[in-house]
Amino acid sequence: MITKREQIAARKRAADMIRQAGIRITNDEAAAIEVVDFGLSNLEKEGVQVLTLVQTERISVKVLALFPNQTEPEHWHPPVGDDPGKEETIRVIAGKVYFYTPGEDSFKDGFLLDGKEECYTMRHELVLEASDQITLQPGEKHWFQAREQGAVMYSFSTTARDVLDQFTDPDIVRTTKIIEK
Amino acid sequence: MITKREQIAARKRAADMIRQAGIRITNDEAAAIEVVDFGLSNLEKEGVQVLTLVQTERISVKVLALFPNQTEPEHWHPPVGDDPGKEETIRVIAGKVYFYTPGEDSFKDGFLLDGKEECYTMRHELVLEASDQITLQPGEKHWFQAREQGAVMYSFSTTARDVLDQFTDPDIVRTTKIIEK
Repeated sequence: MITKREQIAARKRAADMIRQAGIRITNDEAAAIEVVDFGLSNLEKEGVQVLTLVQTERISVKVLALFPNQTEPEHWHPPVGDDPGKEETIRVIAGKVYFYTPGEDSFKDGFLLDGKEECYTMRHELVLEASDQITLQPGEKHWFQAREQGAVMYSFSTTARDVLDQFTDPDIVRTTKIIEK
Repeated sequence: MITKREQIAARKRAADMIRQAGIRITNDEAAAIEVVDFGLSNLEKEGVQVLTLVQTERISVKVLALFPNQTEPEHWHPPVGDDPGKEETIRVIAGKVYFYTPGEDSFKDGFLLDGKEECYTMRHELVLEASDQITLQPGEKHWFQAREQGAVMYSFSTTARDVLDQFTDPDIVRTTKIIEK
């Protein structure tokens, strides 16, 4: 959970990063940025900020902002009914993103959170910078991490059903609880 | 048809516009910009420049650049096999776009090319500026036009099959012929 105040601050910070990266967004869009702590109550370490630009039954376009040294936990997009699962292309706009996918263990410059090694099983490392992109197939496990500068990226995909995503960490709950305080 | 020289010049001009709009692209991407004259050999008046960022079996992401007073001819995206047709969201990044869709005739600030009135039958006018977006359903006829500043926009869509698009103008051929000269 996060407090309402933390949510507002994280939203503002993410909107500033997105605009700094050259992506023009409206004030209404900035105010709708989703702050996601994955139910872990440790937003600065494990979380992501998400601005949804397009969400239809067929496609989805989001802008993702990662704060410095923030990690989006390992997850995958399972089949849903007739849909084989979300196919997603991540394109980095600003910052450097350490991206982990299936493949040979080449883990080198990323870091694992203390005591959470088992929640991050993909160790094939790709370092993506501005204008680099990667396409993830449905079901392909992945996680990613920003460093000192943070990062801003687009996610272009087939329709997103975020609450049905699956995570390696059994403690994760996709819906962030916001408490008044 | 256009000459190889015209193609190279239009590509460079479009890449400059895209970068000016704050969209970071690689040199390889700039060199792959498609210059489309729709077989009308009148690129400055009727045409579009297209940079494809993502093209899979399921989704497509393009950056479109329109030169000042250039018009993209009226067209629609028909069903193809099991696919009901391309669904597309256009989001304007820079410039002003005069957009025409089905609906009440509100034609006011756009212009029709001399003698081509019958090729532009949609007259419901929407004026889109930076951060405005519109979603087009499969089969929905549309055309759009830039004014003095030109325009840059994203097209986020289900998979694109450009050569199967249908056009009101019977003279249109979707594949641009490039001649050496």
